[in-house]
Amino acid sequence: MQNRPRLDRGLIHVYTGSGKGKTTAALGVCFRAAGHGYRSYIIQFMKGQIVYGELNAARFTNGLITIEQMGRPDFVSKENPEKIDIEMAQSALQLAERVIKSEEYDIVVLDEVNVAADFKLIDKSDVVRILKEKPQSVEVILTGRYAPQEFLDIADLVSEVREVKHYYSKGIEARDGIDR
Amino acid sequence: MQNRPRLDRGLIHVYTGSGKGKTTAALGVCFRAAGHGYRSYIIQFMKGQIVYGELNAARFTNGLITIEQMGRPDFVSKENPEKIDIEMAQSALQLAERVIKSEEYDIVVLDEVNVAADFKLIDKSDVVRILKEKPQSVEVILTGRYAPQEFLDIADLVSEVREVKHYYSKGIEARDGIDR
Repeated sequence: MQNRPRLDRGLIHVYTGSGKGKTTAALGVCFRAAGHGYRSYIIQFMKGQIVYGELNAARFTNGLITIEQMGRPDFVSKENPEKIDIEMAQSALQLAERVIKSEEYDIVVLDEVNVAADFKLIDKSDVVRILKEKPQSVEVILTGRYAPQEFLDIADLVSEVREVKHYYSKGIEARDGIDR
Repeated sequence: MQNRPRLDRGLIHVYTGSGKGKTTAALGVCFRAAGHGYRSYIIQFMKGQIVYGELNAARFTNGLITIEQMGRPDFVSKENPEKIDIEMAQSALQLAERVIKSEEYDIVVLDEVNVAADFKLIDKSDVVRILKEKPQSVEVILTGRYAPQEFLDIADLVSEVREVKHYYSKGIEARDGIDR
């Protein structure tokens, strides 16, 4: 951990919208950053036990990219989430706060945190507080549809990934390697 | 190269729009795919000699991700491109065609090819022909602003990354590890 590069001024990104490319954009930033020696920690809200390729690929990076899944494989009901879904999302947010404050990672990705907030699994004001208190050197990336306005307001960068066309609508299902 | 996984049906993605997240979304797909053992080849049009982190990070992947820069570091003039810019973009497209047809790579990314077509460094009809002739198993990803309508028409997936807010407009310059 000695002599690793540090960002002078870490910023906050939000990738939202209904199109494909939000999680992969965050993964791509971490991959690019690894090439400069920066360390990333990716916390996946509401995702669990599905073998996303990025979990395996992170092993190539000699610890520069760490990924933690903090959810169940099942679909979470927005209207009636399970108690375990709420507990896991809140644990994920606590982990996020610890990782951000530790300053051991240059980039912290809260993947699907926008959805977790929209589903009220976590309180969006807790996310905003963590962002306001983040150390200067840490870059934080929030992904997922339905980003609350409060996240957009505090962000330095917001990209809305708009779905113009998607093969899911042609009946092509999610494929290993491309969609997970 | 024996026994590597192959995609049953490779599709065509376009990531366009003015927001941050197009190249990184493509990089993220390649990173995820590497975790499943798929091989990616990324050709960067109109980019050269700038140390993008992904060039270093690709070295971690044991040959699963290859990146080739096919441009000059200088800005290309849309109104009056240099002869060398046209030659390099056309070489990049020839390389793309060879790599796609070889079927040695599962994913081929033509990074910034949309801009190269918009700037008329390459003929968009050549890109469409290559896409129409691509082998079934190869996934092709096109990135860059100003994607021509013909690319959108042939694509299976189009995401428009819309810039809602960007730190460049606050005077923050491109940073190693995040923007390159």
